[in-house]
Amino acid sequence: MPTEIRAAVLHAPHEPIRIERLILDDPDADEVLIEIRAAGLCHSDLHYIEGHIGGTFPMVLGHEAAGVVVKVGDKVTGLKPGDHVIPLFSPECRQCVNCLSGRTNFCLRPATVPGRSRMKTLDGQPVYRASLGTTATHAVLSEHAVCKIRDDAPFDKVFYCGCGITTGVGAAMFQAKVKRDDRVIVFGVGGIGLNVLQGARLAGAKQIVAVDANPLREESALKFGATHFVNVHDHGDKIVEHLQQITGGGAEYCFECIGNVEVMRQALAATNPYWGRAIVVGIAPAGKQVSFDAISLILGRGISGSVFGGAKGKTDLPKVVDWYMNGDIMVDELVTHTMKLEDINEGYDLMRRGESIRTAIVL
Amino acid sequence: MPTEIRAAVLHAPHEPIRIERLILDDPDADEVLIEIRAAGLCHSDLHYIEGHIGGTFPMVLGHEAAGVVVKVGDKVTGLKPGDHVIPLFSPECRQCVNCLSGRTNFCLRPATVPGRSRMKTLDGQPVYRASLGTTATHAVLSEHAVCKIRDDAPFDKVFYCGCGITTGVGAAMFQAKVKRDDRVIVFGVGGIGLNVLQGARLAGAKQIVAVDANPLREESALKFGATHFVNVHDHGDKIVEHLQQITGGGAEYCFECIGNVEVMRQALAATNPYWGRAIVVGIAPAGKQVSFDAISLILGRGISGSVFGGAKGKTDLPKVVDWYMNGDIMVDELVTHTMKLEDINEGYDLMRRGESIRTAIVL
Repeated sequence: MPTEIRAAVLHAPHEPIRIERLILDDPDADEVLIEIRAAGLCHSDLHYIEGHIGGTFPMVLGHEAAGVVVKVGDKVTGLKPGDHVIPLFSPECRQCVNCLSGRTNFCLRPATVPGRSRMKTLDGQPVYRASLGTTATHAVLSEHAVCKIRDDAPFDKVFYCGCGITTGVGAAMFQAKVKRDDRVIVFGVGGIGLNVLQGARLAGAKQIVAVDANPLREESALKFGATHFVNVHDHGDKIVEHLQQITGGGAEYCFECIGNVEVMRQALAATNPYWGRAIVVGIAPAGKQVSFDAISLILGRGISGSVFGGAKGKTDLPKVVDWYMNGDIMVDELVTHTMKLEDINEGYDLMRRGESIRTAIVL
Repeated sequence: MPTEIRAAVLHAPHEPIRIERLILDDPDADEVLIEIRAAGLCHSDLHYIEGHIGGTFPMVLGHEAAGVVVKVGDKVTGLKPGDHVIPLFSPECRQCVNCLSGRTNFCLRPATVPGRSRMKTLDGQPVYRASLGTTATHAVLSEHAVCKIRDDAPFDKVFYCGCGITTGVGAAMFQAKVKRDDRVIVFGVGGIGLNVLQGARLAGAKQIVAVDANPLREESALKFGATHFVNVHDHGDKIVEHLQQITGGGAEYCFECIGNVEVMRQALAATNPYWGRAIVVGIAPAGKQVSFDAISLILGRGISGSVFGGAKGKTDLPKVVDWYMNGDIMVDELVTHTMKLEDINEGYDLMRRGESIRTAIVL
């Protein structure tokens, strides 16, 4: 029987989001119905609101959440009603070529079927979702896009493991596999960068340099694991030389968390020339070219990308939740605001003004 | 007691090399005196002859050789007279930060002390060396820059393991660590590229695509392990799409063996987008910029460099010699010419005209 839900609906770019009653389909055989308890507002949602990414409207935003399974389809074997879960925008089917490769965390089976509506208005008009559509009281998702987590983890914190925490902490722990006593540089210490810092700290890096243009970020950077803070404005075009110097010849790993191709160039140049790796976490605007001197690679250094911190959704997310529950990583401090679904527009306003790190919508 | 030797001496760029009698210093405590039995002419020597790389003249060229230890210094513990050896332009001291890191094959201790002359003319004028100065009957080298090899390996073939063979085969085996059933693309199948091909074959790659602008290279490419030959002129600006298509979504590893930044861009783009790695083997002219769309990294692919095929001189070179002796890799077929030291200028002429793959100077 379909479920009546409340959801945050975006009808068109630049319009305010409206909270509406909708009808949610029952789960198919391989799907589960989840009661969402907390959902995060992620910067990437803004791309839909501001029209940078298209999609089928009206849509329910959101891909970062935590909740409880209410109902499961006939073929679901790994989840049952009552399970605490985190939806996975980066799923893990364990059957596709990529999952079976052992070489990537990027599952080829989509989390949701593009363009397929699972919701409708009370008068029967279809409502779509951007990514997972988790800014709602309930969601229907495929089993491969839902990760079971421990029951004692607070929903209003660990929802953030569904995207930002894992993207950052995972970049250090799963993608780069930072080792004890490594030297690490993190370029850009907003929300993701702070998580890379604490991932590097968890890995045991001996030197963790935070690089940012905003000196107000020094305090939080140091709190999240940075051993040094470098204000780019203090060094001008000598920033790479300075970073090479303070790391004693370059970092094992440099993480670019901005999406700026010039910073990607610097990140590569600031690595150890023999074995250093620049890991691109930030997403550059489409078509932007990253350039560097080909000779700079000659001794062995390299640059590569990452998605969702290299974390395999079902396999690795429970580890991230454990790290939080064990006090190995900080999450509470990053969830700067908590509000009701009705206040979601205010949450995006805080984000636009740079006043929040992460806002939790509690349901 | 100093040794009288014969050596190929370059007195200035663009001059013919002259065979002269010189006096070679006795080995210091940590050095060995080697009787060179065979030396290779490598394309990089041309940089000195043609004035692209400076140095102190007069100089003896050469860094690719095989020979027998004649005398060892007091502190030499790993080599003795009679040992068959290959000199190492890429040494392995096992004591420097890099050797101890376990993360690179690039030893920080120079093979030779720059600017230090170990030879003089019969009337006492110093003669220097470019790299190891192995185009001579004898050479004095530090122990960390000399690798002992098995006694039954023919000098006039395995000298080539001291540079070209290992740079190519090693790029697949040691640097990339190509795995069974991987898909590999090799851009540029001259001498180094052929060695990458046979390295990929040795690793068990299931698909090995040779890409070259010269259709005459197809036969040798197939002989050295290529399963496909792609003439770049047949595909124009669709070369990447073609390579993506025939590899079923991109190669695990692409090797750039030319030193062309546009080809490096293609090599990255032809990798599997999730886990592919482009390995740069070719050396681009100083200052040349490699550029690519930053978004192309977003799913995980990457590009990195390599030096001497990722081979640790002392540790890995005996393995390469074993592969040759066991018939796992072909070397004889690459040593296309053999000549005396007196004919060295003819050897470089063959190289300039593209008529040789490798010329051996036998002594």
